Amino acid sequence: MVRPLIMSQPVSATATLLIHCPDRAGLVHDVTGFILSHHGNIIDLQQHIDPAEDAFFMRLEWDLSGFNLEQEEIEDRLRPMARRHQMQWQLHFSTQRPRVALFVTKENHCLYDLLARHEAGELPADIPLIISNHEILRPVAERFGLAFHHFPMRADNKAQVEEAQLELLRAERIDTLVLARYMQIISPRLIAAFPHQILNIHHSFLPAFVGAKPYHQAYERGVKLIGATSHYVTEDLDEGPIIHQDVTRVSHADNVSDLVRLGRDLEKTVLAKALRWHLGHRVLVYRNKTVVFG
Amino acid sequence: MVRPLIMSQPVSATATLLIHCPDRAGLVHDVTGFILSHHGNIIDLQQHIDPAEDAFFMRLEWDLSGFNLEQEEIEDRLRPMARRHQMQWQLHFSTQRPRVALFVTKENHCLYDLLARHEAGELPADIPLIISNHEILRPVAERFGLAFHHFPMRADNKAQVEEAQLELLRAERIDTLVLARYMQIISPRLIAAFPHQILNIHHSFLPAFVGAKPYHQAYERGVKLIGATSHYVTEDLDEGPIIHQDVTRVSHADNVSDLVRLGRDLEKTVLAKALRWHLGHRVLVYRNKTVVFG
Amino acid sequence: MVRPLIMSQPVSATATLLIHCPDRAGLVHDVTGFILSHHGNIIDLQQHIDPAEDAFFMRLEWDLSGFNLEQEEIEDRLRPMARRHQMQWQLHFSTQRPRVALFVTKENHCLYDLLARHEAGELPADIPLIISNHEILRPVAERFGLAFHHFPMRADNKAQVEEAQLELLRAERIDTLVLARYMQIISPRLIAAFPHQILNIHHSFLPAFVGAKPYHQAYERGVKLIGATSHYVTEDLDEGPIIHQDVTRVSHADNVSDLVRLGRDLEKTVLAKALRWHLGHRVLVYRNKTVVFG
Amino acid sequence: MVRPLIMSQPVSATATLLIHCPDRAGLVHDVTGFILSHHGNIIDLQQHIDPAEDAFFMRLEWDLSGFNLEQEEIEDRLRPMARRHQMQWQLHFSTQRPRVALFVTKENHCLYDLLARHEAGELPADIPLIISNHEILRPVAERFGLAFHHFPMRADNKAQVEEAQLELLRAERIDTLVLARYMQIISPRLIAAFPHQILNIHHSFLPAFVGAKPYHQAYERGVKLIGATSHYVTEDLDEGPIIHQDVTRVSHADNVSDLVRLGRDLEKTVLAKALRWHLGHRVLVYRNKTVVFG
Repeated sequence: MVRPLIMSQPVSATATLLIHCPDRAGLVHDVTGFILSHHGNIIDLQQHIDPAEDAFFMRLEWDLSGFNLEQEEIEDRLRPMARRHQMQWQLHFSTQRPRVALFVTKENHCLYDLLARHEAGELPADIPLIISNHEILRPVAERFGLAFHHFPMRADNKAQVEEAQLELLRAERIDTLVLARYMQIISPRLIAAFPHQILNIHHSFLPAFVGAKPYHQAYERGVKLIGATSHYVTEDLDEGPIIHQDVTRVSHADNVSDLVRLGRDLEKTVLAKALRWHLGHRVLVYRNKTVVFG
Repeated sequence: MVRPLIMSQPVSATATLLIHCPDRAGLVHDVTGFILSHHGNIIDLQQHIDPAEDAFFMRLEWDLSGFNLEQEEIEDRLRPMARRHQMQWQLHFSTQRPRVALFVTKENHCLYDLLARHEAGELPADIPLIISNHEILRPVAERFGLAFHHFPMRADNKAQVEEAQLELLRAERIDTLVLARYMQIISPRLIAAFPHQILNIHHSFLPAFVGAKPYHQAYERGVKLIGATSHYVTEDLDEGPIIHQDVTRVSHADNVSDLVRLGRDLEKTVLAKALRWHLGHRVLVYRNKTVVFG
Repeated sequence: MVRPLIMSQPVSATATLLIHCPDRAGLVHDVTGFILSHHGNIIDLQQHIDPAEDAFFMRLEWDLSGFNLEQEEIEDRLRPMARRHQMQWQLHFSTQRPRVALFVTKENHCLYDLLARHEAGELPADIPLIISNHEILRPVAERFGLAFHHFPMRADNKAQVEEAQLELLRAERIDTLVLARYMQIISPRLIAAFPHQILNIHHSFLPAFVGAKPYHQAYERGVKLIGATSHYVTEDLDEGPIIHQDVTRVSHADNVSDLVRLGRDLEKTVLAKALRWHLGHRVLVYRNKTVVFG
Repeated sequence: MVRPLIMSQPVSATATLLIHCPDRAGLVHDVTGFILSHHGNIIDLQQHIDPAEDAFFMRLEWDLSGFNLEQEEIEDRLRPMARRHQMQWQLHFSTQRPRVALFVTKENHCLYDLLARHEAGELPADIPLIISNHEILRPVAERFGLAFHHFPMRADNKAQVEEAQLELLRAERIDTLVLARYMQIISPRLIAAFPHQILNIHHSFLPAFVGAKPYHQAYERGVKLIGATSHYVTEDLDEGPIIHQDVTRVSHADNVSDLVRLGRDLEKTVLAKALRWHLGHRVLVYRNKTVVFG
């Protein structure tokens, strides 16, 4: 299994299994036994136990090159074991690239960063379209040759607009939504259609500031660090499972616009890292938090 | 003025002037003119303007070796200029080492760290005594040959105890109080006696958690960073001017006791850095925030 | 001088003076006296003394709105004082935006990052052109509507090519060159034409690795951190004055391509920060190192 | 297996198995099968594959409370499987606390930090003795009630001294040596007696500086970051497998003594973290680098 050093993706196709179930003896043995009995070669196995919750988590990736089951069969064959261990599980194949829709409003920093990374091959996904409630970033989409869908939002058309968005997302077989500084609240209906498949990025501070203009509040409070958090969107606004966080140092010499600028740098790197983990099937959600097999 | 590289303190005595006043033309010129006219050599000058507040801040340190005013005279001679520019100002001499009292309860990490740094010459201060509401850290004080004063606290004796503490602090000519994990709320009377001279350290999180057991709450929320904040104590509990903050990365694999342990590491380094800046007269407070001339 | 909080640039034009000279009494007083006597309002003053070298450094920015000298006169009037104090000095006006040429080869990460920042208003400069020794990034230039000049390089045409580049740079009145992953060695002739005006970015490691394929070497050595350094280009390859450095954590789980990818993230943020400081006239070079008035 | 949240150590005894062998199908299955067949409950399993080397690494910790083999038997029963898979392996029991000797010279920062952490329960080890080539830190040892052994070193007695040290270390059944700023080169004979059981801490810089006075060199070079590296001691001086590294930011305003002081802070935290991982049997060495199951 010697592979060239410079490959970030395995040469042959792989399958990834994500498991979450009650902890009990024999779990690893059973799952690895299944892979082994069909001549799969495990190339990554990470396991975590939360002793307080008696919960077991595993990510297992194996090479499909010598595997003697077709992709369609694997799921069927796994089902009895999964039922026996009360597993919540996901099965992904590296040959099936996730399809991602980017949601934006006016700010371009996350959008450019994600598109440049995509072009550089860092994001194992297809990005067929961009959705926005403004026209302002259409030129960016055009520069990259991407479809740009403008959905103007008014107080009275939100339900209809989201219905139309949903239709578009289904027609384009979208798996994952990335709110790349999208300044609209996502409705429960859209959230329910993409459970733990919508990533958001927002600022975060020590201490936290509630209400409008958080950077102004942070400036007034004289904080020495500003932060950004990427999380899955749930019905509790900005309270969904945290995937990644980072901070940057600021000082009295930074004014509000400096904080905003430094915040943009954080937002783009934090969102990109969270998305990369998500697309690599490295994030498991339970009890409103995440296990990240980084 | 060639000085040996390895010196952290100037060879000769210095004076440090901290100024805060409304911004107006000629401030720097007037102050440096005063130093110059008495043959002082400026070795550090830092200035900051807050344009939103139209406020001016300056830290100026000069060599006293050729200066033609006695220390006692300087203050008198500065007064007219200070009045003219409506300055709030402080004047410190490197020959007058601040006297620091450490307040502790049961945890030893900040205490050991500060005492080891003091022994290594990192803290330009004298530490004549330790005050605690428990006996448990007395052996640490004894190891370092420091006086340890035990003030047991009950609900009904708090006022008397603080009165006794105040008397002791005055008798020992203490300038600065460091709450090195002191698990008691300081009363307004003590705070008023040491304005912006009491440093505290506490945990901080993204998001913030209100109430008891914050590390448990952070664990439940699945945060990916934990932080610590050092601030001056004011009557608004944990809301005083922030001097320094830092964070450390955590993951799903860290349980509550890991968070607590990593938090201790942060607390000790953040508090030590804040204290060093304070003792070097590098921190100016205004409008409940700080200018740190680091 | 109350300015709106959200402004990153002063509303009115400013002048910035950078000074480097032997340390002596009265320097600050003399310079601020000059500004004051012409009714200038200082909005930023930073000063540094290197006691080991007896050297004085200052950055001073003042508002030109009430200033009673024309821009053309200022330099003449400063000259006598500068001569008296043996000053090396630079004078910049915020109304004169620096003109920047980006040099690239094949990698797009620094290029996209700089262009997106420029579009977002973060870089106070004009970027009239991109120079490359390959065609591959021409589409990126076209997306942003920028001139792209392809200069194919061979072993036998280097001198001629650089001559042509120099001519182009002069014709376009370029002030600053940014080597944004430009995989060619700049000749002494080009370096001499742009002293301390050429910024480079390169990887850096603990320990450092000499020779080809540094990321492979870092992987083999099992480093736990990788870094990036932005510096001015001098004749000593990669040994010029350091402007900014940063690192990112890696582990045994990161293969060579992970290191390369994480290195790209570092490179782009380190280069952008260094460039922003350079364009804001915040970097002073002396004795092959920098004073950064951040 | 519900355990109280606040425990950092499992309530009951555990065994930890560290494995390194050629990668082949069935490894995880075989090892977990062994644990399972004897009624062990796995509480932590981490696995890593280095595809470039075709090498497999695993750390597996299991609860011994229901396990039906005595500690003495486990090794015997594991041997056939280990031989079959050409495993290099280590077996550790949480009931057997490692015994650590600290080696120091004159600087106290790492020593105090380790002793305070030990007192706070952070280091799962016994520290029966301190060895030094100077008398200067004897008072620190006495404060903590630890034996302090002074071995004066001269050019002509090095071999004899190390022989005496070796005898002492054996008499005290020492497992791990920590060079906590020990300013002597360890001889091959001592290294051979403690393979991958001697931890060192040293400064590291971007770029690296060879020769004496590295902090002076770093200052002269104008670096913006300084670092520290903890590694296992091998015969290649300072070139042994890296366990942990970290850096801190410095600026032109920091003189050599500031760099030294900031370096001390780094050294103590980096060494303590590396030691904690080592004592937790989380570090595997192969090909002069480490896999750290953090």
